[in-house]
Amino acid sequence: MNYFPPAIQNLIDEFNKLPGIGPKTSERFVFYLLKQSEEEIKKFAKAIENLKKKITICSQCYNFSEKDPCPICTDPRRDKSLLCVVAYPQDLQAIEKTNEYKGLYHILGGILNPIEGIGPKELKIQELLKRVKKPNSKIQEIILGLNPDLEGEATAIYLAKLLRPLKIKVARLARGLPMGSDLQYADEVTLSNALEGRKEM
Amino acid sequence: MNYFPPAIQNLIDEFNKLPGIGPKTSERFVFYLLKQSEEEIKKFAKAIENLKKKITICSQCYNFSEKDPCPICTDPRRDKSLLCVVAYPQDLQAIEKTNEYKGLYHILGGILNPIEGIGPKELKIQELLKRVKKPNSKIQEIILGLNPDLEGEATAIYLAKLLRPLKIKVARLARGLPMGSDLQYADEVTLSNALEGRKEM
Repeated sequence: MNYFPPAIQNLIDEFNKLPGIGPKTSERFVFYLLKQSEEEIKKFAKAIENLKKKITICSQCYNFSEKDPCPICTDPRRDKSLLCVVAYPQDLQAIEKTNEYKGLYHILGGILNPIEGIGPKELKIQELLKRVKKPNSKIQEIILGLNPDLEGEATAIYLAKLLRPLKIKVARLARGLPMGSDLQYADEVTLSNALEGRKEM
Repeated sequence: MNYFPPAIQNLIDEFNKLPGIGPKTSERFVFYLLKQSEEEIKKFAKAIENLKKKITICSQCYNFSEKDPCPICTDPRRDKSLLCVVAYPQDLQAIEKTNEYKGLYHILGGILNPIEGIGPKELKIQELLKRVKKPNSKIQEIILGLNPDLEGEATAIYLAKLLRPLKIKVARLARGLPMGSDLQYADEVTLSNALEGRKEM
């Protein structure tokens, strides 16, 4: 029998739907919130409510944004000759954090995965080609910022094949040892990549 | 630089405040919610809003409830001679799930912990004594449902000392091997407890 009052149980059920969160953690969240001020709780509820109300998708790069086109696409300081293709908005965020890249982005919205039924039509690939082919497009180089795994690799090869006939430079991110790693524990593929991509000092 | 739109970043910040949740998990929650319907999102926001609005504390047992007194305290089928003292509402919930206990509860609201500054005054201990001493009280036995650890043990000893002069039976939960455990890996204290508390078959 469940003796949590409905207002508590309802919120436990809602938290329980979040990815990776079970009933015990949901309970913990609710009992944590019960200790917070009414104001804090309202702020939280408001933030959730505003999510769908305020967020739209940029019609150029397909990133989430409060404006269409998004602040990156409309930023005049951005280099419009460079386009980085990523799978998810979170990947864009990771690249932005480096402060290294000043070009534009294109979010595919996923990665090719035939087993899970995700083919080229499920991703923003046609939109990418259209964007590159536009007469006023300034894109000269496309960087494929995809994960170095099976699906990322397959998607990169697929995209490279489609993009090559358009006479645009297509690059992928470098492979090698990550910072702070230990040679002893590096896997063979990473180490092979690091050897192959060695750089003169 | 942070390129998440404010509506996304705000919600990430809110999730980030939850216990055990870091920025990466918060991001994951938000991107999960972005894929949900507007209706689902509203339900979630509403559940959070309702938490503080609807929940009060039962003036008898100090459990969270939508009514005062709570449904357990007012349930006529409950055995009013039995009182189980627990530290937190979650402990009550765990005991209720067993379907074994049909008495009443008293929630202390914590456990004695001098290092963290939690003394008897921070807990509902005076309230427990008052409740037991009431002329119309039917309580005959108190079960101390506290954790078998240092703080739980200390709290149990403290409470037993206070309750003994009132001529009420005071019991604690049994110690022994948990179901599904392996003798080989049981710690010495658990095994000693299991030996000491052995039961004839």
